[in-house]
Amino acid sequence: MPVPPRPWMNAELEALRDTVVRFIGAEITPKIKAWSDQGHIDRDLWRRAGDLGLLCTDVAEEHGGIGGDITHEALISMELVRGGGNCFRACRSIHVIAAHYVEAYGTAEQKARWLPGLCSGELIAGMGMTEPGGGSDLQNTRTKAVRCQGGYLVNGSKTFITNGSTADLLVLAVKTDPKERAKGMSLILFDTKTAGFRVGQRLDKVGLHYSDTCELFFDDCEVPEDALLGGVEGRGFYQMMEQLPYERAMIAVAGAANVQYAYDLTLDYTREREAFGKRIIEFQNTRFELAEIKTDALVSRLLADHVIERMRDGTADAEVLCMAKFWLTDKQSEVVDRCLQLFGGYGYMMDYPIGRLYADGRIERIYGGTNEIMKELIGRSL
Amino acid sequence: MPVPPRPWMNAELEALRDTVVRFIGAEITPKIKAWSDQGHIDRDLWRRAGDLGLLCTDVAEEHGGIGGDITHEALISMELVRGGGNCFRACRSIHVIAAHYVEAYGTAEQKARWLPGLCSGELIAGMGMTEPGGGSDLQNTRTKAVRCQGGYLVNGSKTFITNGSTADLLVLAVKTDPKERAKGMSLILFDTKTAGFRVGQRLDKVGLHYSDTCELFFDDCEVPEDALLGGVEGRGFYQMMEQLPYERAMIAVAGAANVQYAYDLTLDYTREREAFGKRIIEFQNTRFELAEIKTDALVSRLLADHVIERMRDGTADAEVLCMAKFWLTDKQSEVVDRCLQLFGGYGYMMDYPIGRLYADGRIERIYGGTNEIMKELIGRSL
Amino acid sequence: MPVPPRPWMNAELEALRDTVVRFIGAEITPKIKAWSDQGHIDRDLWRRAGDLGLLCTDVAEEHGGIGGDITHEALISMELVRGGGNCFRACRSIHVIAAHYVEAYGTAEQKARWLPGLCSGELIAGMGMTEPGGGSDLQNTRTKAVRCQGGYLVNGSKTFITNGSTADLLVLAVKTDPKERAKGMSLILFDTKTAGFRVGQRLDKVGLHYSDTCELFFDDCEVPEDALLGGVEGRGFYQMMEQLPYERAMIAVAGAANVQYAYDLTLDYTREREAFGKRIIEFQNTRFELAEIKTDALVSRLLADHVIERMRDGTADAEVLCMAKFWLTDKQSEVVDRCLQLFGGYGYMMDYPIGRLYADGRIERIYGGTNEIMKELIGRSL
Amino acid sequence: MPVPPRPWMNAELEALRDTVVRFIGAEITPKIKAWSDQGHIDRDLWRRAGDLGLLCTDVAEEHGGIGGDITHEALISMELVRGGGNCFRACRSIHVIAAHYVEAYGTAEQKARWLPGLCSGELIAGMGMTEPGGGSDLQNTRTKAVRCQGGYLVNGSKTFITNGSTADLLVLAVKTDPKERAKGMSLILFDTKTAGFRVGQRLDKVGLHYSDTCELFFDDCEVPEDALLGGVEGRGFYQMMEQLPYERAMIAVAGAANVQYAYDLTLDYTREREAFGKRIIEFQNTRFELAEIKTDALVSRLLADHVIERMRDGTADAEVLCMAKFWLTDKQSEVVDRCLQLFGGYGYMMDYPIGRLYADGRIERIYGGTNEIMKELIGRSL
Repeated sequence: MPVPPRPWMNAELEALRDTVVRFIGAEITPKIKAWSDQGHIDRDLWRRAGDLGLLCTDVAEEHGGIGGDITHEALISMELVRGGGNCFRACRSIHVIAAHYVEAYGTAEQKARWLPGLCSGELIAGMGMTEPGGGSDLQNTRTKAVRCQGGYLVNGSKTFITNGSTADLLVLAVKTDPKERAKGMSLILFDTKTAGFRVGQRLDKVGLHYSDTCELFFDDCEVPEDALLGGVEGRGFYQMMEQLPYERAMIAVAGAANVQYAYDLTLDYTREREAFGKRIIEFQNTRFELAEIKTDALVSRLLADHVIERMRDGTADAEVLCMAKFWLTDKQSEVVDRCLQLFGGYGYMMDYPIGRLYADGRIERIYGGTNEIMKELIGRSL
Repeated sequence: MPVPPRPWMNAELEALRDTVVRFIGAEITPKIKAWSDQGHIDRDLWRRAGDLGLLCTDVAEEHGGIGGDITHEALISMELVRGGGNCFRACRSIHVIAAHYVEAYGTAEQKARWLPGLCSGELIAGMGMTEPGGGSDLQNTRTKAVRCQGGYLVNGSKTFITNGSTADLLVLAVKTDPKERAKGMSLILFDTKTAGFRVGQRLDKVGLHYSDTCELFFDDCEVPEDALLGGVEGRGFYQMMEQLPYERAMIAVAGAANVQYAYDLTLDYTREREAFGKRIIEFQNTRFELAEIKTDALVSRLLADHVIERMRDGTADAEVLCMAKFWLTDKQSEVVDRCLQLFGGYGYMMDYPIGRLYADGRIERIYGGTNEIMKELIGRSL
Repeated sequence: MPVPPRPWMNAELEALRDTVVRFIGAEITPKIKAWSDQGHIDRDLWRRAGDLGLLCTDVAEEHGGIGGDITHEALISMELVRGGGNCFRACRSIHVIAAHYVEAYGTAEQKARWLPGLCSGELIAGMGMTEPGGGSDLQNTRTKAVRCQGGYLVNGSKTFITNGSTADLLVLAVKTDPKERAKGMSLILFDTKTAGFRVGQRLDKVGLHYSDTCELFFDDCEVPEDALLGGVEGRGFYQMMEQLPYERAMIAVAGAANVQYAYDLTLDYTREREAFGKRIIEFQNTRFELAEIKTDALVSRLLADHVIERMRDGTADAEVLCMAKFWLTDKQSEVVDRCLQLFGGYGYMMDYPIGRLYADGRIERIYGGTNEIMKELIGRSL
Repeated sequence: MPVPPRPWMNAELEALRDTVVRFIGAEITPKIKAWSDQGHIDRDLWRRAGDLGLLCTDVAEEHGGIGGDITHEALISMELVRGGGNCFRACRSIHVIAAHYVEAYGTAEQKARWLPGLCSGELIAGMGMTEPGGGSDLQNTRTKAVRCQGGYLVNGSKTFITNGSTADLLVLAVKTDPKERAKGMSLILFDTKTAGFRVGQRLDKVGLHYSDTCELFFDDCEVPEDALLGGVEGRGFYQMMEQLPYERAMIAVAGAANVQYAYDLTLDYTREREAFGKRIIEFQNTRFELAEIKTDALVSRLLADHVIERMRDGTADAEVLCMAKFWLTDKQSEVVDRCLQLFGGYGYMMDYPIGRLYADGRIERIYGGTNEIMKELIGRSL
């Protein structure tokens, strides 16, 4: 079956895809092993991506983006999964999300200060949300920003922070009013050159070995008043609630792309590899596995397209993104696991893309709100 | 989440839906129990449905249909699932498929003889394919049609035949050349008033209790030459291969409708029913179950819509229908089983629609080609 | 692999097995179809079973039993699954459980009055626990027994009562003190000849078609004081908590027996039946299915044996029975469903034992406490 | 539920357990991180284990073992899972298996040469079976041992070899008669100091980071005639078939131990960790997950005990080990994945034992014969 084109594709996006595919092939794929060993992406890559307009594509042109929408972002994420693995995709996604906060809620000064650099790749951004022992429970944030002369004094710590050791900007969730839960939360545009900020050890993860993920410490960090996102306290929780659907959409889209890529890798492998005197694909069990997975890939694509189109049209509500996030990342885990099995011992090797998909992919059911949180949110609205 | 409208819906179909819903509510729902006890639908129902133009909607107007397409058929099937259970839906579906054979391959005389009656409901049709011990292996058909003077002498037997005891017309798969496999097969438009035809016992099934399913016997049945569908021998297998995708599309669409209906029933029940001092829906396990099933219903709908649109546009190939058939009927079984569980003891009662969905639905993974055959067919093309 | 003997088998049990197998073959197997049509077992069967000492085998000899233990009961249940389907097994199991209540808590008079008849099969017993809308939530019982002169006035209703239309004795859960929850509950040995007692319609179930299951109504039924089980009020809930593990053990054991029987049926069928030119068992998919199911049968047997041995030795706690009940009935559903699929259309026929196993078995995850209740109980103790 | 003691435990094994637990706590647990970074275990550890008699416990005392049986080996494996992770367990298991070949088939000289050192830990052994592109298909071995003066000339390569860079002895599968399949195979006791032997890069695996796994190359390696295991050509395949059940038993036992350990870790974590204002274990979803996993742990234990007892008694056939191998490693994967999810982000960290169990455990369904091979073997015997 020739897969019909995605309903949201068009000529402009096809052209973008060509650029993206060439970029990944030249700048990312050959470096995966080296970056995995060193534990992070070369900073340089961000600038090269920025030069080609491949960062923050859905930020407005006036701020340095290319004025695209979620289709541009989805396209790039999908190609990154295939050509570069999930690490830069995940790092870049967080960077884009951070830029969205600045664009959506920032004052004119905040936009001017940060967005051009984030779009060009001169600056790298991260999201400072999760805290040690805190998980997905954002209202329980313990990092505090206490009013002081001319600004705030930030104290606390964050963990599992993507781009943690390289970020110039952190969109940092803090309590400006610790007596309140949701209403006490604000977001700070935190410059990582601030005194008192310290990056802990890079975390040793099951996968995503060249995504730099760290624990961060904030000891009496003085930030100026105008670091408060949007200039008004107490809006942080609502801002996060507004932006989380986008993050979930991107995780969902990447989930479907992982499913398709795992299928493609496995189809190729089982067609070539022989065992017991025939090609693996000639065993009925293999064919049934592939038939089921190919169908899963179709269904996953339909759900991802549904999400992309509804996000583009502004008709996606929070619930459909919770649905797509948990369903597609569950499917991703299941499919990648089944595909790996068909590779036998080679599937367990990190030099094989399927091994990396396995190790990398396990986090998808956890971050962006665990899949249990997704179900809790859907369940509450019934 | 208000479910967005099906992409293929339009005002004409909305009007049709009103008619269908009223018809089902008046003519079918109240009779389910009585029909289940007697083991078949009253013949009368067919004529009433025909009067309203609700049979063979995608047959051309010149032959008595309403000149619709698969969207009309899908809509009616979906509403039948909700209001009338799966029995008449299944019986009617076979009837429509039989009419498709006549319209697609029949001579002008054959069309004129059979189609008006099938559209009006005066005549009922069935498909005579499966044989005792034969299952989905059609090339192995043993019922023979041997040339005799002025026609053919038909001998053999069929089983699992829907509308078996009530059909006036059977589209009957026979071997006209028993030495050949596929090439030896032909289809006969078999008039059940033919001497030598005998209906065996109505089969006692796990569900579909008012669908009449029988074993049929053909002993030296003389049929005229012009009963040969299309007038040319040896085309039967290819005709079936061409029509099977439609049957699979309708099973797939009904699968998605069963999923949605099971969800709706269960949401209502768990909202009202109390246990251990609270409503069942307030238990986290129930909410998680419903969240997962609601998501399954969305995904199922997207796949069903994909199939409907591609069938309507003529871009569906055989593979996508194999995919949709096995995936949606597997999902149907899984979801109905999970929903039933949330009803506790009431779920096991045939007076509760969920109990009927369970008993009725188990056949969907088997007929129209078992789900294993679907995977085999997909697997062969990889 | 020749299956090693069950660790609890011995020569006495082997002899019992011979009797049981002969009895089932002569008295039950040939009548399944007729009983299914009439909706209940012939009363006569109970007496024949009683004559052979096959009812209440673990009741003491002085009361008419044969002084056996759970191994005798397990053995009979397992053989009933194979030779007679699940209906009489389920009906007999409830009867035995009712006898256990009398033996465990009854006064000398109560034992003398009921046990000999229950052992001989002259009397049939049922358990009156579940109420309409009440499910597994026993503390919420609404049937009341109000003190009156010389006894109690019973009012209320019960549903899903096995042996409902044929029972002579009901062990009836009532509230003697409606202000209390657990502490307000008592059990009444209810003689169904009491005025005011009425049997509702036999319930139309998905399966277990010759198990008679009814709704029961109690309107001002006067029962004598000495009908109170054990003669002391307020002990009912604790008595039920003490006896429920036994019921769960028997459901678990039957679950494992269903798994083994489904496997055996399917192995035979797939060895004989041909499709596409070879025996079904020669397809790799079939062999993998059977390999997995055979393994499930082994594991199920090990868990059932563990339960039987611990029950026999008195070392089983409530938790292990909750575990075995949910795990083995979930496995039963899963395995029977997979096996049925390998029968194709024949699997959907009630004349095939696999079709009956499917329709009958769905209740096992529900009664005796739903599998959700099992997990709740295990979860609470963690 | 206090878990009842394993039926095969006894006082001697309890004493051994104390030694083992102390040894692991002192010599292994503290070094996991360092060894993971360097990619292999310190050689030193083998000698320390040997000093305590903890290597090759089921080798006869006359050869340096302690004359135990599979219960000793199972006990040590189970404790290694808990205290040291799966790496040393896997490495040690291969070492023991290699020793078994020498003891079972070796000439007196071969036993004398190798066994004392393998038991004392002075020598390390590996199994040279799998070849690049060869997987579980041993009859297709391409490494050749060609007769030359005074011995054999070995050419070929092996991959996925545990203890690959540290082994002194390799039990090497070769073709001595390349024209034959099974009958052409022999085993060579290959001394890794032989000229022409070369160790390739240590393989970068998804997990088992301190198990040293390598590709090995044999270029015109001259081995003496008496390196042929048992001194007779053509027996290699049958020797492997005889020994494989033991390897599968050990993998199965370790699978059950992983399930139990994952459960224990998760119970502790969910009892302590809070989210959304309560301990994670207080959420019904968590309790249901734990209830199911606890049950899986019980069932897994019963199957492992069954295997251990039958191996000890000599009643295990090849089939039951195929069953236990695939079932328990599938269960291990499933349970570890579910447990990890309950840890949220921490589950993805290699510093958390659950993260390591996840990365390490994925290979278990592949080595020792993939789980597909297991099903194929079971399926063939039906």
